[in-house]
Amino acid sequence: MKPLFIIKIGGNIVDDDLALENFLQSFAGIISPKILVHGGGKLATKVAEAMGIEQQMIEGRRITDAETLKIVTMVYAGFINKNVVGKLQSQHNNAIGITGADGNAILAHKRVAKTNYGYVGDVDSVNTDFFLQLLEKNMVPVVAPITHNGEGQLLNTNADTIAQSIATAMSKLYDVTLIYSFEKAGVLLDVQDESSCISILTPDYYQSLKEKQLIFAGMIPKLDNAFAAIHAGVAKVIIGNAALLPDLMEGKAGTTIQYG
Amino acid sequence: MKPLFIIKIGGNIVDDDLALENFLQSFAGIISPKILVHGGGKLATKVAEAMGIEQQMIEGRRITDAETLKIVTMVYAGFINKNVVGKLQSQHNNAIGITGADGNAILAHKRVAKTNYGYVGDVDSVNTDFFLQLLEKNMVPVVAPITHNGEGQLLNTNADTIAQSIATAMSKLYDVTLIYSFEKAGVLLDVQDESSCISILTPDYYQSLKEKQLIFAGMIPKLDNAFAAIHAGVAKVIIGNAALLPDLMEGKAGTTIQYG
Repeated sequence: MKPLFIIKIGGNIVDDDLALENFLQSFAGIISPKILVHGGGKLATKVAEAMGIEQQMIEGRRITDAETLKIVTMVYAGFINKNVVGKLQSQHNNAIGITGADGNAILAHKRVAKTNYGYVGDVDSVNTDFFLQLLEKNMVPVVAPITHNGEGQLLNTNADTIAQSIATAMSKLYDVTLIYSFEKAGVLLDVQDESSCISILTPDYYQSLKEKQLIFAGMIPKLDNAFAAIHAGVAKVIIGNAALLPDLMEGKAGTTIQYG
Repeated sequence: MKPLFIIKIGGNIVDDDLALENFLQSFAGIISPKILVHGGGKLATKVAEAMGIEQQMIEGRRITDAETLKIVTMVYAGFINKNVVGKLQSQHNNAIGITGADGNAILAHKRVAKTNYGYVGDVDSVNTDFFLQLLEKNMVPVVAPITHNGEGQLLNTNADTIAQSIATAMSKLYDVTLIYSFEKAGVLLDVQDESSCISILTPDYYQSLKEKQLIFAGMIPKLDNAFAAIHAGVAKVIIGNAALLPDLMEGKAGTTIQYG
């Protein structure tokens, strides 16, 4: 199977013009078929504050009410997505920015939970035909973390989960490497110490680290997504620093998630 | 040649939930290949006001400074575009929302004029291959009025001009009908009287109406675009009420722009 790189950039990179510029330059240099998934960053919160819209929180988690959905759709699918597309175009990458609604790319349903998180989507399916069609035309899909339910409702959806869902679905057609890139060196044993990056993380090792509470809480959903991808047939999952993208791709930096 | 409908909806329709819903229902029913171009509406101004960003005006025209560009990109390419796409998907139209940057669809340059209008784009070229590729897959392009210059700069671009540019370019491949739909019955002899709609407007008639100052100033750029389209090979241009889309398509309502 042909290689396909699915690369997710985190919000902190999106927020940092220089880091984003550097990342996009490396990303643009990748010759293989590739998909970029971007997170949201803090701009949505800033816009909400500037507009005087209060963020509703329940148990420390932000609720996506109707006004918040409006703002994340504007910021993620509008501002961030189109700026990334424009920049990739200037690097001669034929980027196309999409949400899950465009081309019916990603169907989701409103999360069912005791807590009402509002317009938050859990992914149901990925339209592999659509992604395949774009990739075969040498296009570079740039995916914003917004999905839809097929009934006209947009849904705010975790970008890590979107990257994992696309990677899992596309692994039937490609030899997929999924890279979670952010501002840290990888999975760290000591969150303060960039040199404490774990090279290889297996399910057993992950389990033991979790039991010893050595995994930073914020990393757990990302790692659960990473292991889910590996279990579902994604060839490789790597977590690491966006500034070292070429090294991450060759497994020379970051944390490689590995079976057994 | 196969028929292609390129339909532009104006800002007042975009601002009116019910009118938009009705329009999208009619639009979704069109079986022929079709492209939707949407205007901006007043939401961008509302967001700018809510964020405390002052609109710069020169000679009564809004200037697209960097902050305004940010907002129109968020509102047009994010909020409006993705909501329209989500709604069309719910009507089983495989919509895909794009700006001129996506798929390098529309290249433009920053307007050169005595007055510095800021980040305003004048269209240079339309990527007909890209539109063709989407249409051949039965997709429905939904175009937001944002273009790019190929060097990473997004540009705010008049939606009427975008519709005309796409129509002109696609007329080499399709039998194009360009429809400008808005909240009025068509080109009116008396702007207060919906029944004064002109059925057929020729260049000579247009010229004589302009000389008598019987054309509402706001209509002139739209009509100049309409005549430019006809001159450049677009088969049909019709201007009329978005609520009467099926009638406009059959030439039973609105103003038909016609050669000689």
